[in-house]
Amino acid sequence: MVGNTFGRIFRITTCGESYAGAFRKHLDIPKELFGGLIAIVDGVPPGIKLTADFIQAEMDKRRPGQSEFDTPRQERDKVYIFSGVMEDDITTGAPVGLIISNDVIEDQHIQKHKSYREVVRPGQAGYTFFKKYGQFADNIGAGRASGRETAARVAGGAVAKAVLDTMGIDVIAFITEIHGIKAGKISYETAKANYRKNEINCPDLEKAKEMMEELRRIKEEGDSAGGVVEIIARGVPAGLGEPVFDKLQATLAHALMSIGAIKGLEFGDGFEHARMKGSESNDIPYFDESGRVRFKTNHAGGILGGISNGEDLRIRVAVKPTPTISIKQETVNMYKKENVEVEFNTRNDPCVCPRIYPVCEAMVRIAILDALYIAKGYRAVSQNIDPRWDFV
Amino acid sequence: MVGNTFGRIFRITTCGESYAGAFRKHLDIPKELFGGLIAIVDGVPPGIKLTADFIQAEMDKRRPGQSEFDTPRQERDKVYIFSGVMEDDITTGAPVGLIISNDVIEDQHIQKHKSYREVVRPGQAGYTFFKKYGQFADNIGAGRASGRETAARVAGGAVAKAVLDTMGIDVIAFITEIHGIKAGKISYETAKANYRKNEINCPDLEKAKEMMEELRRIKEEGDSAGGVVEIIARGVPAGLGEPVFDKLQATLAHALMSIGAIKGLEFGDGFEHARMKGSESNDIPYFDESGRVRFKTNHAGGILGGISNGEDLRIRVAVKPTPTISIKQETVNMYKKENVEVEFNTRNDPCVCPRIYPVCEAMVRIAILDALYIAKGYRAVSQNIDPRWDFV
Amino acid sequence: MVGNTFGRIFRITTCGESYAGAFRKHLDIPKELFGGLIAIVDGVPPGIKLTADFIQAEMDKRRPGQSEFDTPRQERDKVYIFSGVMEDDITTGAPVGLIISNDVIEDQHIQKHKSYREVVRPGQAGYTFFKKYGQFADNIGAGRASGRETAARVAGGAVAKAVLDTMGIDVIAFITEIHGIKAGKISYETAKANYRKNEINCPDLEKAKEMMEELRRIKEEGDSAGGVVEIIARGVPAGLGEPVFDKLQATLAHALMSIGAIKGLEFGDGFEHARMKGSESNDIPYFDESGRVRFKTNHAGGILGGISNGEDLRIRVAVKPTPTISIKQETVNMYKKENVEVEFNTRNDPCVCPRIYPVCEAMVRIAILDALYIAKGYRAVSQNIDPRWDFV
Amino acid sequence: MVGNTFGRIFRITTCGESYAGAFRKHLDIPKELFGGLIAIVDGVPPGIKLTADFIQAEMDKRRPGQSEFDTPRQERDKVYIFSGVMEDDITTGAPVGLIISNDVIEDQHIQKHKSYREVVRPGQAGYTFFKKYGQFADNIGAGRASGRETAARVAGGAVAKAVLDTMGIDVIAFITEIHGIKAGKISYETAKANYRKNEINCPDLEKAKEMMEELRRIKEEGDSAGGVVEIIARGVPAGLGEPVFDKLQATLAHALMSIGAIKGLEFGDGFEHARMKGSESNDIPYFDESGRVRFKTNHAGGILGGISNGEDLRIRVAVKPTPTISIKQETVNMYKKENVEVEFNTRNDPCVCPRIYPVCEAMVRIAILDALYIAKGYRAVSQNIDPRWDFV
Repeated sequence: MVGNTFGRIFRITTCGESYAGAFRKHLDIPKELFGGLIAIVDGVPPGIKLTADFIQAEMDKRRPGQSEFDTPRQERDKVYIFSGVMEDDITTGAPVGLIISNDVIEDQHIQKHKSYREVVRPGQAGYTFFKKYGQFADNIGAGRASGRETAARVAGGAVAKAVLDTMGIDVIAFITEIHGIKAGKISYETAKANYRKNEINCPDLEKAKEMMEELRRIKEEGDSAGGVVEIIARGVPAGLGEPVFDKLQATLAHALMSIGAIKGLEFGDGFEHARMKGSESNDIPYFDESGRVRFKTNHAGGILGGISNGEDLRIRVAVKPTPTISIKQETVNMYKKENVEVEFNTRNDPCVCPRIYPVCEAMVRIAILDALYIAKGYRAVSQNIDPRWDFV
Repeated sequence: MVGNTFGRIFRITTCGESYAGAFRKHLDIPKELFGGLIAIVDGVPPGIKLTADFIQAEMDKRRPGQSEFDTPRQERDKVYIFSGVMEDDITTGAPVGLIISNDVIEDQHIQKHKSYREVVRPGQAGYTFFKKYGQFADNIGAGRASGRETAARVAGGAVAKAVLDTMGIDVIAFITEIHGIKAGKISYETAKANYRKNEINCPDLEKAKEMMEELRRIKEEGDSAGGVVEIIARGVPAGLGEPVFDKLQATLAHALMSIGAIKGLEFGDGFEHARMKGSESNDIPYFDESGRVRFKTNHAGGILGGISNGEDLRIRVAVKPTPTISIKQETVNMYKKENVEVEFNTRNDPCVCPRIYPVCEAMVRIAILDALYIAKGYRAVSQNIDPRWDFV
Repeated sequence: MVGNTFGRIFRITTCGESYAGAFRKHLDIPKELFGGLIAIVDGVPPGIKLTADFIQAEMDKRRPGQSEFDTPRQERDKVYIFSGVMEDDITTGAPVGLIISNDVIEDQHIQKHKSYREVVRPGQAGYTFFKKYGQFADNIGAGRASGRETAARVAGGAVAKAVLDTMGIDVIAFITEIHGIKAGKISYETAKANYRKNEINCPDLEKAKEMMEELRRIKEEGDSAGGVVEIIARGVPAGLGEPVFDKLQATLAHALMSIGAIKGLEFGDGFEHARMKGSESNDIPYFDESGRVRFKTNHAGGILGGISNGEDLRIRVAVKPTPTISIKQETVNMYKKENVEVEFNTRNDPCVCPRIYPVCEAMVRIAILDALYIAKGYRAVSQNIDPRWDFV
Repeated sequence: MVGNTFGRIFRITTCGESYAGAFRKHLDIPKELFGGLIAIVDGVPPGIKLTADFIQAEMDKRRPGQSEFDTPRQERDKVYIFSGVMEDDITTGAPVGLIISNDVIEDQHIQKHKSYREVVRPGQAGYTFFKKYGQFADNIGAGRASGRETAARVAGGAVAKAVLDTMGIDVIAFITEIHGIKAGKISYETAKANYRKNEINCPDLEKAKEMMEELRRIKEEGDSAGGVVEIIARGVPAGLGEPVFDKLQATLAHALMSIGAIKGLEFGDGFEHARMKGSESNDIPYFDESGRVRFKTNHAGGILGGISNGEDLRIRVAVKPTPTISIKQETVNMYKKENVEVEFNTRNDPCVCPRIYPVCEAMVRIAILDALYIAKGYRAVSQNIDPRWDFV
């Protein structure tokens, strides 16, 4: 694989897969690191307060086993700060290394996964991994294509959060639709107040009940459901994004579409624009009382001409149903080169939305901070400003 | 600006804006280049047949003034091959330089645009360009934020097409929705046969008539409309895309979302996944009679686990209505710092879809060819294959 | 080719080769552009004064035919500013496109070059281009491997100079050795005062006479000579360079070693360090009267730990003798696959040093400005400074 | 810091510093990881045999405490393979994560280093780190600027070695000069046979004795010495390197000059070219008996026109004396802003050459493998070759 780094200046690089480490447990890894992940976060500014607890709080958002809608699989996901932070919990400017442990893999699961080795699980990466990596592909428990990989993104995103917090930039993601049941329009304030009040992270608390009822029904069928996650970023200054190819929506789209289960995204009114007229979709600017330019509406989702305009970024992403289901399906055995029928009995989430929302938060934070570095560097050079440390 | 290059190995870099060159016509540019654009295409393989006529044919797809739904503005958009090709029209491996002329800018338009200099046009990049580039922003005729910039992408995409043609990879884009009027489901074959048979490039020839009727009505109002463009790529081999951050859908999303007017995109069934169950959305693989793995459906749009699976890539993008309309709108005068009301009288397309589809084709071609280089390099190294020229 | 862009934020992309355009003159290029080059300079800040004359002054430094030691070949090398600058000669922030014309290619030279097509010229890129690009390689007049390509770098470097001038950063390069004849130690002030006072750009005006005498002798033999170019950058602020892999000396080395004729480089005392003790090579810091830290010596050449320390950058590069000589040499005919003996009768410089020094200046300027963007962006984020335009 | 990744396709990303982890030992890192380093190696092909022992063998080359000329400091430098390898020791294509432990940091050393916190050590990165990262810089034991960081490069380079070994590409580095005492000309065969036969890794076994004698003398003075390391890469195919900015010598120079102590480098005859004539420096090609083109000499060091020519790559780098010496030196106290005089009592190598040679090997291997990916991808696309796994 050659695409395990994201970002231009603020950069995250990750490694680790669902089970490969576990297979080697007799060999050379300390027990704490079985089945673990690593994220190296580069471009972290010096002087930021960063503790393992702060990162752990983000990690815990995506940890499975928290509700009836998660996989009952246990992953401890404990984060260790390995480098880049001094004894007083302050970053030094050196790359922050994060290790995420996962020490509760049991042999029975490994054996079960091994038994599926030859058979492609519909909707999963097994087939394309065989095409790309041949017989050497880590096709046990999905390997690098497992959703588990996203835990490292959340850890890296938490570092971005620590920086963005100092600038008053807040990113939240929440569920607005599951299997066709849609929440009403949700403000930033409502989302912020409510999005962690139920097990599916939907701030429309009434609609959430319907969604949960629906999920229970689908789970009983052994099936799974898709949904929609919405992301709002408040406090993003105007000026981020680099025309013409690295427009802010382009790098954000890259960041979000790199999450496996996402099949679509839209900014602001998104596909609704196809049903609008220019006189309806144009956001009208005006000087507010403080002399700042604001917009009367936000159909654009906070981006104009590829550059943030100071309004909330609003993004929605479509999440496909979990591909692993407990229903018999036709498929292929790649080794025997024959069509087969199988029912997989692994543990999985009936809907990944409640686990994917913190990954969306993480990727948006990383992309925004990366854009900030470039925009600030560009403006600092343009205006011949040379920020210096008071100290020296 | 710092984002004017796209691609990792196969790379396009562009410059040029709508009017800046024209303002300098008394100064130092040969007349042929007034208001022109340049694309440098890097990573072009040697030995490919490439003529200006071939590129021109792609350029002519997006040239305005072709129908009643285009801006009546004339842009000649003639392409010159500047470098990288020898006398026998064969590429050498050197970067291909392309110059696109635009010699019909008339002073009256420049004067009109100048008169709008201080005023933000709602829905356009003027405001954010002021925030990013200050008073120096080229805010006349939209400058670098003008859709005109995309002509250089189409020229570059034509070079990618010349290469992909040798591999049997075909990319087409066409209109499937305008202002809420939707075409029926369109196969690759129908699209290929019909998409250039009407002025709005919609292969559903019946529905297209309704769309055109609607556009006429909206144009009379001085308003504009949004729509949806669909892209199909046939012949893409399995194995393209680099997990975990440079998945094929991530780099394609980056490529497409960098086009100014696009506000959303989806792969395969896209947002419909939010209304599906796993048992519905999983594409079932099988060995066909020739022993090749195919899929019974293509809900995924040709990508699994971030890697192409050999089926058609299917992507849909949402296009916002042209922001420049001939209706009075409120806005701000940035220089006088006051709220104003204006009606802009520039010439514009009532719907950009018929001009944006070749840009979509171009960007998808560039992204696919770039992914091909990386995937092939990766596999050539993995298998210790060293392709050599017979010649040496 | 896939390496025609240099820089991370401030970026130059070039195309064009010595003769390819010329072969196509009947085809599709305006006469002004025969045999020309293009540079697209991305990341240019808005608000910088930039005229074609300013760039031309840099171009004229490397133009051949200026002295008896240059090739008598005529290249007009006229620069056109194509984009990114408005009517008042002020940059807008859009990428600056530069076209360099070369309209004096004569058919007789093309015919002569064609006659050499099959034969590898010792010391030149012909053989490796055949291996890399096969029979399609532009092997006439060296194509993209010609020193002519560097004219585009000089044009791009002039744009960097326009920016660095506003910051008081000055880069000069000059000759300190030719065919073993070494100039004495030269201060920045002497170099600045004298380096353009003779035809070989050596500020040691006495030693320069010896060098010129030697060059005349070598030229009469039909041979050529190597030399050393020294580069000094004054006014570079402390803090540039990004450990651990993009240390300032690493990106500067990348920039300079990308110039074809350069075979070695050293920072500060360079290889002399191999003969020194730590007590001799350590530069001792002290607070000067103004309270600023300075260093008593500059053995390090202005870089410590991969980061600029505020002292002059001092770099020396070794330039190999021009490979094309008028002496019979053995070589190979690639088409006939046989060993042959040839004497090439093309016109060339007996020493490229007087033409390569402005290329060194250009590449160092580009690398420094690129490093400035990254360092300033990093510090602006670290200190939560948000440079804003007064205007908005 | 933002430069902790090297490579375009084959990429290494590292983190970790000399003591930061140790300071946090009470906090959150398992004991095995105190003071450790991480390398994530991306772009590793699937199907390669890779064991911790294989990597450890490379690590052990640079481990201190092996001779009287090393620092007596103990660093265990044990490598753990964290990810990317399955139970049968075969790579999967997933990024290979490597953790390097260092569990023998003792409190007394930490305390000693803390006592130096305010004072700049001449010749080291302390001053520039203060300028770049302010008071938050990890200025204890050199932090990220410590030579210790290079252990992660060696681990990553060992992964590159495992791949290059399958292709018959061999890279070795050895010492050819210490404090002015120069070895004679050394062939690849001699170097290979002898370079690990003495404690300073100099294959000229006679001259090595003189060098060691000299080092003993200098060590007694409390001083240190510089030297020269030579690198030879055999078996590199013709065709690597991407003109015009990513020529092979440019990316190799970037790779090598990123090693802190290196102050100069040269390819082939390097600076000797400044004393040569074209008729002397041109390497004459000929068809050998097998019909392959070879060169009669290798003044160029295996690179022509920025592209490997199939001959040995030969590179020499100048290494500065270890800056930390046991002799009283003047310097500055950054906190008190005053000039001071200090004698540092830390343990250090009198010459880093014997520890830096494996780092040179590692960086050259990484740069060559990265160039291989790009060249092979380029040729595979150019020739429309699609390497496929037999398996699928």
